Amino acid sequence: MSWQIGIEDLDALAIGAAILGTGGGGDPYIGRVMAEAHMRENGPVTVCEVDELADDAWVIPIAGMGAPTVLVEKVPRGTEPVGAFQRLADHLGAVGALPCPIEAGGINSMVPLQVAAALGRPVVDADGMGRAFPELYMQTFHIAGISGTPACIASEFDDFVILDHLHDNYALEWIARGITIRMGGHSFVSQFPMHGRDVKRAAIRGTLSLGLRIGNAVLRAEQSHEDPLEAICEATQYSGYGRGRILFKGKIVEVSRRTAEGFARGMVRVEGIDQGRGQVIEIEFQNENLLIRQGKRVLGMVPDLITVLDTHTGLAVTTERLRYGQRVSVLGIPAPAIMKSPAALKVWGPRGFGYDFDYATSWELN
Amino acid sequence: MSWQIGIEDLDALAIGAAILGTGGGGDPYIGRVMAEAHMRENGPVTVCEVDELADDAWVIPIAGMGAPTVLVEKVPRGTEPVGAFQRLADHLGAVGALPCPIEAGGINSMVPLQVAAALGRPVVDADGMGRAFPELYMQTFHIAGISGTPACIASEFDDFVILDHLHDNYALEWIARGITIRMGGHSFVSQFPMHGRDVKRAAIRGTLSLGLRIGNAVLRAEQSHEDPLEAICEATQYSGYGRGRILFKGKIVEVSRRTAEGFARGMVRVEGIDQGRGQVIEIEFQNENLLIRQGKRVLGMVPDLITVLDTHTGLAVTTERLRYGQRVSVLGIPAPAIMKSPAALKVWGPRGFGYDFDYATSWELN
Repeated sequence: MSWQIGIEDLDALAIGAAILGTGGGGDPYIGRVMAEAHMRENGPVTVCEVDELADDAWVIPIAGMGAPTVLVEKVPRGTEPVGAFQRLADHLGAVGALPCPIEAGGINSMVPLQVAAALGRPVVDADGMGRAFPELYMQTFHIAGISGTPACIASEFDDFVILDHLHDNYALEWIARGITIRMGGHSFVSQFPMHGRDVKRAAIRGTLSLGLRIGNAVLRAEQSHEDPLEAICEATQYSGYGRGRILFKGKIVEVSRRTAEGFARGMVRVEGIDQGRGQVIEIEFQNENLLIRQGKRVLGMVPDLITVLDTHTGLAVTTERLRYGQRVSVLGIPAPAIMKSPAALKVWGPRGFGYDFDYATSWELN
Repeated sequence: MSWQIGIEDLDALAIGAAILGTGGGGDPYIGRVMAEAHMRENGPVTVCEVDELADDAWVIPIAGMGAPTVLVEKVPRGTEPVGAFQRLADHLGAVGALPCPIEAGGINSMVPLQVAAALGRPVVDADGMGRAFPELYMQTFHIAGISGTPACIASEFDDFVILDHLHDNYALEWIARGITIRMGGHSFVSQFPMHGRDVKRAAIRGTLSLGLRIGNAVLRAEQSHEDPLEAICEATQYSGYGRGRILFKGKIVEVSRRTAEGFARGMVRVEGIDQGRGQVIEIEFQNENLLIRQGKRVLGMVPDLITVLDTHTGLAVTTERLRYGQRVSVLGIPAPAIMKSPAALKVWGPRGFGYDFDYATSWELN
């Protein structure tokens, strides 16, 4: 059943989507501003559930691409997402195509809303990652054998590049990343154009709803002076995701980060406080948080969701905003089963990021 | 008046175009093989002179792009040029478009012939450089204010990327180079699609004819045991180009070359022999030869043509084939006036390559 997202929902969605963004997916503030401008003009956006899609309806996932460290310095012009979406739709002859998120995240859950508001079309309540991942082939659409091309990349100079045909989805990531780097390190990309029947078999469903649900839980906890961390853990249990769990609390004692080859890569070290004093964990990231270690022991890893939260407010701290001295809590959310099939783990399990061990559930799941 | 190029002309064209290629424009042997295959199947190609073009006829310049050092190791599949040409024509709806060279060069004079033979269309006797230059905006088409986009880039994997709109021709070079690097350092590109009326006002005319004329002079000299160097100098005087001149003879005593950022950059040092013993010149190149120095004195510079020839055979030695000990002669050919307008010198005079001095005619011209 379709429902609506209005401006009054954007605060909650920005908060919740950033938590699902596992440190990536772009700055929530920038994303919110981009969506709000169009909704103020054109009213609320209808959200279409996957089962409501016509089998032959065109759906085009759209998102920001590049290092989040760049995004906060090179702020978008604002016209890129609609441009990238519409040029690809025109190239395909995809009349009435519906926008859909690629991933959950502060900016990347908002971008499809912005396009939907601008074009007066519904947005699809689903995405291809169920969280955020750094590379374009890390999508259930790829795992389901759907071609990522044709795709379209847009810059803030109204530059549009159409990836008309590439021999596989790894080439899509490689070429699109190269273009994004040359566009200054951040771009917007529409890709994996597909039909409703493909969305039904391949998408991770309900991720806009889940983002809203988590964000509303944080806002309610704030209003009623309850613990936001507990509220988040409770709210994550939805659509196959497991109940969240606070894996560690402490303060940041080291951040190491570099922006290279189009990604922000690095590590954050958190030292325990209070009863955890003397303990230390490290989180390694490539745009998004990949794994959490305590000494040699890996406490959690991709594709399960690992998000650093501000301990006091429960808001997500994206990897580009991590800084020395912050009081943070590390949240783990078990990813749903669709994200842990053998085919999926091949793409985005630890080996997909160059680690030499297999995925294992290493923290207690509900 | 239109005329024909057949397989029997390809030897001469490969030789002459490589001499006009000033060290770049791609390996003549590879270019010849690519054109010959299609001409053997479809017969000779009609060459259309610029004045014969209908004002509203579509013309699409096409060439190989990237470091020539890469081309000799990563040999083309052969289908790239027709693919890049046809995808761009389809994208534009440019029915019956004619291929045209971007630049003169061993491979880049052949590529449009290959496309013409494959599609059964005439090739245009003109180009946008009148020699070879390393960067895409270094074309008279750019200087005349024509947009380089839409453009299409093809790889040997049948990858096709359409540069639908870029904000200027410098962005075309920047983005296309980035894509070419990600495609492994060499690609084929169709760009600056335009109409006959634009070719008439902007192109450098008769460069296929000139290549043939120079190549035939070399072949005739070989047959009659005459000095090929003298024959080349004589043949260059055509369509506004000045008479060639041998600037230096000697042997190569040093080659320094690196392939970086999509270009082959470097320097070759030649030491005089016989009466020139004790003298040394250096040629600096970026894919193509940019200038020749003797100590601090610059003997010749862009856009005048500087080509290293094998002293014995008169064949051009492209920058990727320079090697220690070769006996070479350095040929200078005065570029025609269209290439030395103030607007043109801004793009491809020495300052266009980062040198801090203006263009000056520094060797004696006829």
